[in-house]
Amino acid sequence: MTREESDSHDEAEIRRLIADQQRAVCAKDVGRIMSYYAADVVIFNVKPPFQTRGAKDWRRTWETALAHFPASFGIETRDLVITVSGDLALVHCLRRFTGMPGQKWIRDTAIYKRGQGRWQIVHEHYSVPFDPETSRAVFAVEA
Amino acid sequence: MTREESDSHDEAEIRRLIADQQRAVCAKDVGRIMSYYAADVVIFNVKPPFQTRGAKDWRRTWETALAHFPASFGIETRDLVITVSGDLALVHCLRRFTGMPGQKWIRDTAIYKRGQGRWQIVHEHYSVPFDPETSRAVFAVEA
Repeated sequence: MTREESDSHDEAEIRRLIADQQRAVCAKDVGRIMSYYAADVVIFNVKPPFQTRGAKDWRRTWETALAHFPASFGIETRDLVITVSGDLALVHCLRRFTGMPGQKWIRDTAIYKRGQGRWQIVHEHYSVPFDPETSRAVFAVEA
Repeated sequence: MTREESDSHDEAEIRRLIADQQRAVCAKDVGRIMSYYAADVVIFNVKPPFQTRGAKDWRRTWETALAHFPASFGIETRDLVITVSGDLALVHCLRRFTGMPGQKWIRDTAIYKRGQGRWQIVHEHYSVPFDPETSRAVFAVEA
C-alpha cells in the first residue's frame, strides 16, 4: 500500500470504531465502551472534574451517566472531520443524544493512537462554550 | 534516524513551536500567532461561537481578545502532554493568563499537522466544564 492508501484504510477503520462505540453507548455496554479507551487516557469532560486521568475513573463517569439515561436513545453526529497520519488519528465533530428530552449539541475532539495494531482513544475533550458575561453555558449551534 | 529518534526530534520541535506561539501572544503579535494555524483550522473556543472555521475568523477573535488585554501579561501552563506520530502531533494541557486579574485555568487541546515540512495547528479546543444543575462554568481545578 502507498502511504495515501494506508491513511485512507486507517480512516475507514477509525470511522468503523466510532460507529461501533456509538452502538456500545446506545446499548449501555460500559465494558465495550471502555474497550475504545487507552488505560492512561486523559479526558476533559463537559461536566466537572476539570480533567479525568485513567480509564478506571472515566469508566465510573460512564456508569453514573448511563444510569440516568432512558432505555432507548440514539446519537446524532454532524460536522465530522477525521485526519489520520502514522499512528495518530484526530476526530472532531458535534454530537447530541436523541430520543430523550432537552439534549443539546456538545463539541467532541478525540485522538486515537495505534499500539500493537489496535487504535484506542488517548485523549478526549467534550465541551460547550460559555458566555463570559454571565458564566453560563451556551448551547446554540450556528448553521 | 530511527522512528523513535524522529518522533523525539518532532516532539522537541512542537515544544519549541508552543513556546514561540506563547511569546507571540504575550507580544500581541497577531500575524505571528496566526502563522501557527493552518488556513482551514477548526476551533472550538471557550466562548461562543460553537465553532470557528478558517484562520480568517479565528484571527478576528484574537484581535478582539488581545485589544482587552493589559500591556504586559504572561501565560502559565501545567499538565502538558505531547504525543507525536507521523505528521500529526497532539498537545493537551491546562493554561491560564497571569499578570491580569481574575484569570482562570482553561483546558486546551491542540492538534498540529505537518505539511511541506511545516507544523501547523489544524484543530484546537479550549473549554472549561459546566455544572449541569446550574448551567454555570466551573473553574475549579483539582490538584
